[in-house]
Amino acid sequence: MEKLYVIKIGGNIIDNPEALNKFLSDYASLNAKKILVHGGGKIATDISASLGIEAKMVDGRRITDLETLKIVTMVYGGLINKNIVASLQSKNCNALGLTGADANIIKSAKRPVKNGIDYGFVGDVENVNGEILSTFLNAGLNPILAPLSHDGNGNILNVNADTMASVTSVVLSKLFEVHLIYCFELRGVLENFEDKNSVISEITPSKYSDLKEKGIISKGMIPKLDNSFDAIFSGVTAVRICHADDLVNIINAGEPLGTVLRK
Amino acid sequence: MEKLYVIKIGGNIIDNPEALNKFLSDYASLNAKKILVHGGGKIATDISASLGIEAKMVDGRRITDLETLKIVTMVYGGLINKNIVASLQSKNCNALGLTGADANIIKSAKRPVKNGIDYGFVGDVENVNGEILSTFLNAGLNPILAPLSHDGNGNILNVNADTMASVTSVVLSKLFEVHLIYCFELRGVLENFEDKNSVISEITPSKYSDLKEKGIISKGMIPKLDNSFDAIFSGVTAVRICHADDLVNIINAGEPLGTVLRK
Repeated sequence: MEKLYVIKIGGNIIDNPEALNKFLSDYASLNAKKILVHGGGKIATDISASLGIEAKMVDGRRITDLETLKIVTMVYGGLINKNIVASLQSKNCNALGLTGADANIIKSAKRPVKNGIDYGFVGDVENVNGEILSTFLNAGLNPILAPLSHDGNGNILNVNADTMASVTSVVLSKLFEVHLIYCFELRGVLENFEDKNSVISEITPSKYSDLKEKGIISKGMIPKLDNSFDAIFSGVTAVRICHADDLVNIINAGEPLGTVLRK
Repeated sequence: MEKLYVIKIGGNIIDNPEALNKFLSDYASLNAKKILVHGGGKIATDISASLGIEAKMVDGRRITDLETLKIVTMVYGGLINKNIVASLQSKNCNALGLTGADANIIKSAKRPVKNGIDYGFVGDVENVNGEILSTFLNAGLNPILAPLSHDGNGNILNVNADTMASVTSVVLSKLFEVHLIYCFELRGVLENFEDKNSVISEITPSKYSDLKEKGIISKGMIPKLDNSFDAIFSGVTAVRICHADDLVNIINAGEPLGTVLRK
């Protein structure tokens, strides 16, 4: 099967115009089929504030009321997504910006109220249309996914970008050899958080248990890694967690940078 | 050649949620290959006002400074486009929202300063990629175009939605029998503006000269009709100007409603 990279970038890149521009130049130069999933960053919060709407967060997740839904639809689906697309076009990368509503790519269900928390217009992914994504990839297009979905009843729903990247990877693993890459602000998963160079090069399920037991991997990293191992056991070849600056060397030069998770 | 309808709706429908919902139900029921081009409407102006940005207009065209460009990218490319797409999905119409930047569909050049007027980030269309639109149509997708383009240098540019519809129609007339339909608030071009039922059913170039001479067609309608005849002489089969409510009867039932322009 042909290789496909699903690459997720977060707010730390989106919020920094120089970092974003460098990332997009690197991305355009990758010699492979690829899908980019972008997060939201602070722009939505800033625009909400300008409009007098206060962002509500519970456990690091935005509570999406109707006003906030409008803002994220504008900012994620419009401002961020279309500027990424236009920038990639200028770098000879034929980008196609998409939300989950477009071509019915990602359908989700509104998250039920749980423990008294109503997340509002937030969706849990139900279905990913791998065939149409594959059609786009085979037409030479580079899909750029904004973290928005739809419920099939006419409503846009906010979705978590990490989850969007992993479910998309799982579905496409039936058609491609999928490598999921999470770009973040560190060089990889660290053995010692104080030493930014102490990158753990590979984590297998048994090593993961061991690292959790020793307390080396804790809290914030656990859901990301649990999610990654779920993706691997559902068909994704490997998940890599790395710095965005290392992407070109990883994909074009085959350097084993960052932390790779494998069976 | 297979028939293709390029349908343009303006602000009067976009700004009215009930009219928009009815229009989208009708649109979803059309038994034909089709592309929708939507205008902007008042939402961008309202959001600009909420953010303390004043909309600047010259000759009915928005002057697009950098702040306004951000707003229209958010509102046209995000809020309006994605809500139309989600709504059509709920009506079993597999919609794909696009700006001209996506898949490099429509490239434009920043309009030069003329008579001292700098329109800002407004583009004049240079190139339409008919092949990729055709690929989408043949994959069963229904392209929904927001009036935004890109300049190939990484910038989004605002474009006139009427023009976007007509240039797209011309390019696609090499691959399809294209019928361009402008939906507006009247039943067609009127013989007598005081009588809303005095629709002129057909206008040929010679009749057009005649109607202009008699002063029946004047001012606001002239650029629209000039533009339409240009499209017809460049390959478009016919241009129709009609009320959005008549679309289903025109396309599915073949009723000759509205005003049709032909060679």
